[in-house]
Amino acid sequence: MNKKSGSVGLVKPQLIAFEEALPLQNGQVLPRFELMVETYGQLNAAKSNAILICHALSGHHHVAGKHHENDKHSGWWDNMVGPGKPIDTERFFVVGLNNLGGCHGSSGPLSINPVTGKPYGADFPMVTVKDWVHSQARLADYFGIEQWAAIVGGSLGGMQTMQWAIDLPERVRHAIIIASAPKLSTQNIAFNDVARQAILTDPDFHAGHYSEYETLPRRGLRIARMMGHITYLSEDGLGHKFGRQLRHGDYQFNYDVNFEVESYLRYQGDKFAEIFDANTYLLMTKALDYFDPASDYQDCLQDAFQRIQAQCFVASFSTDWRFSPERSHEIVRALIAAEKSVQYLEVQSHHGHDAFLMEDEAYMRGMYAYLDKVAKEVA
Amino acid sequence: MNKKSGSVGLVKPQLIAFEEALPLQNGQVLPRFELMVETYGQLNAAKSNAILICHALSGHHHVAGKHHENDKHSGWWDNMVGPGKPIDTERFFVVGLNNLGGCHGSSGPLSINPVTGKPYGADFPMVTVKDWVHSQARLADYFGIEQWAAIVGGSLGGMQTMQWAIDLPERVRHAIIIASAPKLSTQNIAFNDVARQAILTDPDFHAGHYSEYETLPRRGLRIARMMGHITYLSEDGLGHKFGRQLRHGDYQFNYDVNFEVESYLRYQGDKFAEIFDANTYLLMTKALDYFDPASDYQDCLQDAFQRIQAQCFVASFSTDWRFSPERSHEIVRALIAAEKSVQYLEVQSHHGHDAFLMEDEAYMRGMYAYLDKVAKEVA
Repeated sequence: MNKKSGSVGLVKPQLIAFEEALPLQNGQVLPRFELMVETYGQLNAAKSNAILICHALSGHHHVAGKHHENDKHSGWWDNMVGPGKPIDTERFFVVGLNNLGGCHGSSGPLSINPVTGKPYGADFPMVTVKDWVHSQARLADYFGIEQWAAIVGGSLGGMQTMQWAIDLPERVRHAIIIASAPKLSTQNIAFNDVARQAILTDPDFHAGHYSEYETLPRRGLRIARMMGHITYLSEDGLGHKFGRQLRHGDYQFNYDVNFEVESYLRYQGDKFAEIFDANTYLLMTKALDYFDPASDYQDCLQDAFQRIQAQCFVASFSTDWRFSPERSHEIVRALIAAEKSVQYLEVQSHHGHDAFLMEDEAYMRGMYAYLDKVAKEVA
Repeated sequence: MNKKSGSVGLVKPQLIAFEEALPLQNGQVLPRFELMVETYGQLNAAKSNAILICHALSGHHHVAGKHHENDKHSGWWDNMVGPGKPIDTERFFVVGLNNLGGCHGSSGPLSINPVTGKPYGADFPMVTVKDWVHSQARLADYFGIEQWAAIVGGSLGGMQTMQWAIDLPERVRHAIIIASAPKLSTQNIAFNDVARQAILTDPDFHAGHYSEYETLPRRGLRIARMMGHITYLSEDGLGHKFGRQLRHGDYQFNYDVNFEVESYLRYQGDKFAEIFDANTYLLMTKALDYFDPASDYQDCLQDAFQRIQAQCFVASFSTDWRFSPERSHEIVRALIAAEKSVQYLEVQSHHGHDAFLMEDEAYMRGMYAYLDKVAKEVA
């Protein structure tokens, strides 16, 4: 496992405009849109070595590298993407984007609504995983990529990968679906709705037009994130990290931080509430709720997967209780029933759902091996 | 299972005043206090047939029966307590109370603070499971009960049962501990803190003195309850009940109720926010967080249990992920290691944590059998 190598170094995002109208699943049409994108590595002459990275709920285009010399943080998947890393930028041309509806530069609630001249806010259309796939296909066209060597995504990103492989089967050679699910469970939807209600009922939400009131629904977003965070971590992992450790050695009999885990969660919530857009959070959770590719095929996932031409790699993590291994088994079973090519890796990890962002050894090794195969096909 | 019989009928709560000061774990002293109590059945001459029911987070004294002829709802454990039921009111004298700090008539945040002449609100002292046991011991004294035939509690109620058996061992003949845990896990504490933060940051909370502002922190309490509710139900149970059932047959692309589970949760939250006191909710969750009987014994649960004289009955439910069967195993293992008498029942149920309030057959049968033994000892 000493294969891990360097960083892609300094990177620069680019904003790409798409002037052709995009019809959306909800019946609305985006007359034009922009996507914030980063790329790493070189697209080969045959344009056959491109990998698309689809991001999860709070992700974006900045996947790897740094934006300036003193940048404290690298991209969100810097451990996976770079020279000599599993998604090897010396072999692949890697594309990261901020999805439509995002808050990191792509067209979304923070963009100016041409009709009003003010930010869209809550008026930005509710986009879905299918809409993202269509917008990402425009991005592939922009780069002249007819077929992705691989599309890779964790969590909500894995859902985009699946939808791509179903909707545009000839354009995906490998579908890498990590810590994902073929649709949300009732409990998943329930947690999402509590998060949304926290935001929607925050008095500073102002029906989603908080920017006009020069405020932010920080309280609601903070609560949503704190709760979300619990579901991203495993019970074991949380216990291992914080246990019942006390901040001041003894009970304080007040509502300040008593247990260290409280401090951690509040900090995560505070930080997120400052940097993430609440309208984006809302619509991302709806995209999760609405993802259900089998619903177009009489609720038969096998039939939905029948269209797939890609070879599939599915990975899950033992302590992920948001999208448990059982949810990946559903995917794998349906792929096998549809007689598709699938490899499955179940990783022992105490990192819960967040494990897809971590470096558990079996996971990294599995990704190395699979992507090495993908790269060799290209060469 | 046709043993289930009638209701205790119409019942009347009584408010009992205790004029002797109660020192609390946090160092404060309650100069006097009142407990709202209901009793069912007859105390025998030897006063040996009394059962104490300890309630969970949102419970109270009204355990069984109705308050008036047109009462739509019976007490919260009416399926367990009544003539011919497992806790048989023809054999036992059953005592239910609202705990100190509650909002159903006992001394708590809604009571008048003698110092200010206004409701305590946030100034009501933070009480603990130990404090509750001491206040309940006063109640036992009031009735002249030297030893409870049994103390019975589910969830936070089971914690009170354990604390009784440890702190006042000679006063408990049987300890019935249902769907409980020897202390909260990190994840349990994390969920509690998110719930508290939702309440504490609600602009209508006013540092806990909302009554002076003639308002209620409904938003925060609603979010806390919605989230709590998810943790009370099993993933299976939620899925079984609501699945991905849509309110209007199709996606609505808005934030109103789309999935039926959203309607259910919001309704539960709305209802709770109208009837429950936020300060009580806060302090009850802290009592949960702080419960940790082993902490007085160098974190050795076996040593804590060494003091127990009661025979113990422990029950857990397969799909309870708030206090999973594994948490009950910890209790059972420590009791066995301490060479105490313990019976353990693990019930297959899809009701999650709430199963302790439900009527899964093995559970009811187990409770019948155990309490029949308790009753026969008395007779």
